Amino acid sequence: MKPYFGKKVIITGGLGFIGSSLARQLVHLGAEVTLVDSLIPIYGGNLFNIHDIIEEVRVNVCDVRDEFAMAYLLKEQDFLFNLAGQTSHVDSMHDPFTDLDINSAAQLSILEVCRKHNPSIKVVFASTRQIYGKPLYLPVDESHPLRPVDVNGINKLAGEGYHILYNDVYGVRACALRLTNTYGPGMRVKDARQTFLGIWVSRIIEGRPLQVFGSGDQLRDFNYVSDCVAALLAVGASDVSNGKVYNLGSSEVVSLLSLAELLVEIEPQASYEIVEFPSERKAIDIGDYYGDFSRLNREFSWLPVVDLKEGLQRTISYYRENISYYL
Amino acid sequence: MKPYFGKKVIITGGLGFIGSSLARQLVHLGAEVTLVDSLIPIYGGNLFNIHDIIEEVRVNVCDVRDEFAMAYLLKEQDFLFNLAGQTSHVDSMHDPFTDLDINSAAQLSILEVCRKHNPSIKVVFASTRQIYGKPLYLPVDESHPLRPVDVNGINKLAGEGYHILYNDVYGVRACALRLTNTYGPGMRVKDARQTFLGIWVSRIIEGRPLQVFGSGDQLRDFNYVSDCVAALLAVGASDVSNGKVYNLGSSEVVSLLSLAELLVEIEPQASYEIVEFPSERKAIDIGDYYGDFSRLNREFSWLPVVDLKEGLQRTISYYRENISYYL
Repeated sequence: MKPYFGKKVIITGGLGFIGSSLARQLVHLGAEVTLVDSLIPIYGGNLFNIHDIIEEVRVNVCDVRDEFAMAYLLKEQDFLFNLAGQTSHVDSMHDPFTDLDINSAAQLSILEVCRKHNPSIKVVFASTRQIYGKPLYLPVDESHPLRPVDVNGINKLAGEGYHILYNDVYGVRACALRLTNTYGPGMRVKDARQTFLGIWVSRIIEGRPLQVFGSGDQLRDFNYVSDCVAALLAVGASDVSNGKVYNLGSSEVVSLLSLAELLVEIEPQASYEIVEFPSERKAIDIGDYYGDFSRLNREFSWLPVVDLKEGLQRTISYYRENISYYL
Repeated sequence: MKPYFGKKVIITGGLGFIGSSLARQLVHLGAEVTLVDSLIPIYGGNLFNIHDIIEEVRVNVCDVRDEFAMAYLLKEQDFLFNLAGQTSHVDSMHDPFTDLDINSAAQLSILEVCRKHNPSIKVVFASTRQIYGKPLYLPVDESHPLRPVDVNGINKLAGEGYHILYNDVYGVRACALRLTNTYGPGMRVKDARQTFLGIWVSRIIEGRPLQVFGSGDQLRDFNYVSDCVAALLAVGASDVSNGKVYNLGSSEVVSLLSLAELLVEIEPQASYEIVEFPSERKAIDIGDYYGDFSRLNREFSWLPVVDLKEGLQRTISYYRENISYYL
């Protein structure tokens, strides 16, 4: 995409799953890319994610809560892809203050820096479907009530709100993508902190059964990481998105059980077991969810192009080769 | 009300406008009342507010952000009326971090204390109509989308969200009242930080014209403080409210201009002037607002009983007598 050629682009969470994939694409598009990452061990940052582009990007290890570092780094940037976040719903319940710090306070701090020092920057915020809570209807569109059922959802909602506010009141151009389950090479597979699909994939590779919680009939939608990156680049490149929020989503909606079955079809030696829903997860579970992404399709012609089977195949073959860098 | 007789009740923001009025009522009802207030000069706390009940309550001056003090104070309480907050929309834009600290972080801290040390407490949170943002329809009911237009609205929304979450996930019984414009004896009149009606009243008493911003045609609803206190007591006394949010409101809806005219009718020596809408206020103005309070009426038979004219008369005569304690 032309809008990024020769432009300075900063990505928070840049060593993470989606951030690193976005960085790779931006390098190909000729952008000057800076990656900010805290490398907090329980989060998604992993230097291996950028091993093939490490000479072509600038890496700055720091926490987005470090306001002076962020003030320095954000100056003179043309684009900010603001992807750093605490992503674990369960962790947000055990340690709500860290979640608040990262997903709300640091976001406000980043936006204050933009307002004061770089008001012409364009900001794309990675929000989440988690802010909807338990769906009242399906598919969930952007007008669906926002009733988050965990601390993470509440804090991400505030983080998103600040972005739209700074767009509307201060003219710091910003928009938000409400991501759903994103998966693919580069995701955290050590545990379920980023996505349960991560731990499923590592279990397949380790030859252990993957675990389906409860009945397994919860419906979900999934985006392969390159489709998510395409959406981020599209909304970042245009002022049409300013002040708006957009769902991602998929035309394939599957139950967790049929996802497990699909994985067994792809990897015949894999197996799954049905286990009781852990109570701390059950308490904050959202039930069925899938998103209506027609706004993003209408305004940016965005459509997910990698189907679930192909995406899962690519993902498993990536981790078969590289699992040692992720455990 | 019997539910409060002999019970331990703590009120955050207890030296403030609504908190002190609630305290007075609880003392009459036979409760053992503790008032927590930070006495931050730009907020609403004022010891004169409790001059008539000071021997009958326990006052503890501290900030709700002081988690160790709050842990000590919250233990063994039966009820928490959680009214402490940063209320100024304009201040929240100038100093968003303080607003975040008080309206979000401290709320989470208070709820963590309840969960860990006093899970059977009943909590009533003072939320605000500000979380709705610019109304999409009128009257605004509790299902109206939540799209706050200032930092205060975003942070209060998170604060409210935590309360409902701790009810739903941890069983810490909590509910929220979404207050609209509350006025009456005890409100801050030094400036417009709590309500513009405060500064209007002090201008009347000082013989200066009150200022109506812009066209003055914005619609608003008002509650006299005793009606607000009645709502707080009603929802606090019952488990029907657990996990729920309720609008307050009024059957009298008036434009700001006709409110000014009503004040001139009550106080014939008063006058008003139309002035330009200050730009920093205009940027975060919500336009017309009035709330649908039928849920509170249906479940608790709540109805505002003090009409606007009577309420304003009582308010002005209070400040004629006591203005020196409020400037």
